[in-house]
Amino acid sequence: MFHEMPVRTRRRSELVDITADIQAIVERSGVKDGLCHLFVPHTTAAITINEKADPDVRRDIGETLSKMVPEGGGYLHAEGNSDAHVKSTLVGVSAFVPVRDGDIVLGTWQAVFFCEFDGPRTRSCLVRVMNTG
Amino acid sequence: MFHEMPVRTRRRSELVDITADIQAIVERSGVKDGLCHLFVPHTTAAITINEKADPDVRRDIGETLSKMVPEGGGYLHAEGNSDAHVKSTLVGVSAFVPVRDGDIVLGTWQAVFFCEFDGPRTRSCLVRVMNTG
Amino acid sequence: MFHEMPVRTRRRSELVDITADIQAIVERSGVKDGLCHLFVPHTTAAITINEKADPDVRRDIGETLSKMVPEGGGYLHAEGNSDAHVKSTLVGVSAFVPVRDGDIVLGTWQAVFFCEFDGPRTRSCLVRVMNTG
Repeated sequence: MFHEMPVRTRRRSELVDITADIQAIVERSGVKDGLCHLFVPHTTAAITINEKADPDVRRDIGETLSKMVPEGGGYLHAEGNSDAHVKSTLVGVSAFVPVRDGDIVLGTWQAVFFCEFDGPRTRSCLVRVMNTG
Repeated sequence: MFHEMPVRTRRRSELVDITADIQAIVERSGVKDGLCHLFVPHTTAAITINEKADPDVRRDIGETLSKMVPEGGGYLHAEGNSDAHVKSTLVGVSAFVPVRDGDIVLGTWQAVFFCEFDGPRTRSCLVRVMNTG
Repeated sequence: MFHEMPVRTRRRSELVDITADIQAIVERSGVKDGLCHLFVPHTTAAITINEKADPDVRRDIGETLSKMVPEGGGYLHAEGNSDAHVKSTLVGVSAFVPVRDGDIVLGTWQAVFFCEFDGPRTRSCLVRVMNTG
C-alpha cells in the first residue's frame, strides 16, 4: 500500500500532471472506499490539485508564484534556490484524494500536479492508499 | 460516510463559515474518534481554518490574497479567473479536522471556512468522516 | 493516540523544528504503518515541512512571508496581527507525515516545523498517529 512513484521533470519550474499514475496505483491497491495520500519527500517541490483543461492555468500558477517569490530575492541561503523552498511551503508537500468505488474522486476540471520548483530532476512522490471502511 | 455538502456563495470572493455543517455531519456519522476530511472539487475555490470571532479577519484574508494575486494580472488563461486558480493552490482544496468523543476538535478561535474566489456560485464540499480506532 | 504537544516559541515569527518530538510520539504509539496527523489549534500559527540542514532556509521562508504579507498592511482587524492570520492560511494548520516500520518517513533534507507568526507564546500541536493497515 506504500508506493514510491518516480517523477521526471524537465524545467526549473513546472507542474506535471500525475493523475493517471495515481489512478493506476489506486486501482492496483484494490481499495474501494478510502483516501489516497500523496507525499513529496523534497524541499523544493510540492503537490497541488488544480485545473487540467487549459494548460495556461498551470503556467499562470507557476508564473504568478515566481512573481510573488522571485528567484533572486536577496535570500540568506547560499544555494540560490530559496525561492523554491518558499514555494514548497506555500503550496505544500501533501495532498489527499478521495477514493470511491475503486476510483479517485476529483472535480470535473481537477487534476493532481507534481510541482517542480528547482528542476529539472528525477523526483519521487510517496503514495499510500487507505481503506476508510 | 461520504457526504456531498452544497455551499452557496454570494460574492466573487468570500469566506463562508461551514463549521456547524461539518459538526452536524460528524454527529450523524456516529464516529467517536477519528478525522473528518473535507475536499473541495473545484479549481477556483479552497478551504481554510482560521479565526471566527472577528469577521474582519476573514475580510483581511480575502483582501490580502487579492493584493498578492491581482484579478487582472496579465495572465495567459483567457477566462479571466486565473487569480482564483492561483489562490486555490495557495490555500489548498483539502482540510482535516480531528474528531474526539463525537465532536470536531478546533481551537477556541478556529472555524472552518469554504473559500470562494470566483463566485457567486453553488459549490460543493465532499466530507468523509473516518474512524481512526 | 491523541496527543497534545506543547510548543514554546521565543520570537514574533519563528520556525521551530518539532521532528524529534513527532518521532518520539510515533514510537510510543506502537503504530508500525500509517500516518501521523499534526493539527495546530491556533489562528496565527501553522505547520510546514521543509529543509532542516541550513537554518538560513527557515529564515528565508519567514522573511519572504513577511515581505509578501507585511505586518502593518492596512488591515481591518484591530488586533494588529492580521498578517499572522493570513500567513496561517497560506501555510496551513495541518500536516501529515507517513509512518513506516514504526518511524516517520521524511525526505533526506526534510524536517517538520511549527510556524509561529504572532509570538512569543506557549502553543500546542495536536498529534494523532493512525494505523492504516
